[in-house]
Amino acid sequence: MPEAASAPAPSRAVIGAGEFDRDTAVTRREPGVYDIDLSAGWTIISAVNGGYLLAVLGRALADTLPHPDPFTISAHYLTASQPGPAVVRTETVRTGRTLSTGQASLLQYDEEGNEVERIRVLASYGDLGTLPDDVRTTAKPPAIPPMDQCFGPEDGPTPVEGSSAITDRLMLKLDPATLGWALGAPSGKGEMRAWFGLADGRDPDPLSLLLAVDALPPTAFEIGLKGWVPTVELTVHVRHRPAPGPLRVSITTRNLAGGFLEEDAEVWDSEDRLVAQSRQLARARLG
Amino acid sequence: MPEAASAPAPSRAVIGAGEFDRDTAVTRREPGVYDIDLSAGWTIISAVNGGYLLAVLGRALADTLPHPDPFTISAHYLTASQPGPAVVRTETVRTGRTLSTGQASLLQYDEEGNEVERIRVLASYGDLGTLPDDVRTTAKPPAIPPMDQCFGPEDGPTPVEGSSAITDRLMLKLDPATLGWALGAPSGKGEMRAWFGLADGRDPDPLSLLLAVDALPPTAFEIGLKGWVPTVELTVHVRHRPAPGPLRVSITTRNLAGGFLEEDAEVWDSEDRLVAQSRQLARARLG
Repeated sequence: MPEAASAPAPSRAVIGAGEFDRDTAVTRREPGVYDIDLSAGWTIISAVNGGYLLAVLGRALADTLPHPDPFTISAHYLTASQPGPAVVRTETVRTGRTLSTGQASLLQYDEEGNEVERIRVLASYGDLGTLPDDVRTTAKPPAIPPMDQCFGPEDGPTPVEGSSAITDRLMLKLDPATLGWALGAPSGKGEMRAWFGLADGRDPDPLSLLLAVDALPPTAFEIGLKGWVPTVELTVHVRHRPAPGPLRVSITTRNLAGGFLEEDAEVWDSEDRLVAQSRQLARARLG
Repeated sequence: MPEAASAPAPSRAVIGAGEFDRDTAVTRREPGVYDIDLSAGWTIISAVNGGYLLAVLGRALADTLPHPDPFTISAHYLTASQPGPAVVRTETVRTGRTLSTGQASLLQYDEEGNEVERIRVLASYGDLGTLPDDVRTTAKPPAIPPMDQCFGPEDGPTPVEGSSAITDRLMLKLDPATLGWALGAPSGKGEMRAWFGLADGRDPDPLSLLLAVDALPPTAFEIGLKGWVPTVELTVHVRHRPAPGPLRVSITTRNLAGGFLEEDAEVWDSEDRLVAQSRQLARARLG
């Protein structure tokens, strides 16, 4: 009697063919001008996620510049983006042998069809594949429980009202030590940690790291603040191509003051490499 | 018999009238165009200090934008600046009620008189004086010995060859725990800490914080690397007007890998406020 066939493993999207690739793809209209329809699938409480937007800009710059990978990218968020038509305008600032620098703007259209700038970015790109393998990182991966002891939005009632379509795009499992806010008992500490991946199984790559650093709930929730914490500026350093498999993201806030806070994010890959570091300045509504 | 007159206290430069103000002053040629002769007084091993250059750009942007203080400023360093004539070209990206965003380029001239871009900057400005006084900073000031137990360049032989005129502009007293490199015995730890001020006694202000985050010896020296550690990109968050008196600057490197490293700087003022935070990405020569 033949063995029962085992159920086929769910197919994982390959890099280049996942939801993230589909929704960050830009169409070059002419050199330096790229069109995109910003997806409604990456919203958090009805706002288009800043990391998703940074990845869109990053993809356009990767096409413009002679080097493929963002090494350091800074974005200033000017006005709130909406799902729908947008254009990215890029400029080459300087090309070098190992690094090139570019600038990019994301713009949308007002009711008269005029362009309104959403985000402006400066970035220096290189080739992560050519870096020497000398690693002297002294930072240590975050202390986060195994994934099966962490919890995602699907494990409990929806803690945050409003449309959060991004939760359907992500595999997010939060450290229970940073989940008190979802149970009405924030720890008071400015920390947020999670296992992170894409829901369709697509492995991480340098561009998806730009999403990863801004895809967790705000540390402000654990501090006990409610309401939105809009990003003013976000700078990401991408330091290594991430290995396949889930990432660990650890975010810390140490300087909530004067109505602003910083979020420092570290992204660690499955080989225990510190593949990305970021810091954002965000407004904190204390009321 | 009249009392002997006490020697007059050495005069301290007031903010606006110190060497730092003189050497970062820009002359507006027309809206958005500012001229300056970059000083040779802020060089470190013959290179013009990156923080001094950032302060020059910051001063021009403060003139261009309707808000006076850099809140978050990111600079990409493209080509090496030289003492001598330079121009800063600024652009207003967006003005808002509490924040405005601008862009600026520092350019110098090649032998044919063509402009060559040295640095490009994106920055969001606000008014630090209008921030609410709610402070929930959890970060703690650095553990650094009292100033009289710390050491500056004047206390020992010149450890670094070459012209370092900047040391004449600064009051810099390094934590002995981060001075091993100057004695041929680097600690191996990516740390650098110092008391910091301006040699002429001018108190700190938001613009001089842009200098302070990049004015210490490289952490790379304490790690045991020699040679230059050029800055690729530097982002500074200015979070509060600094109180008068000396600053404490603490810099940490935790991710030296692949020929690059990050330097995270914190600047604390005399009232124990965390007044600025920065991160730079720099190239590390491992050879």
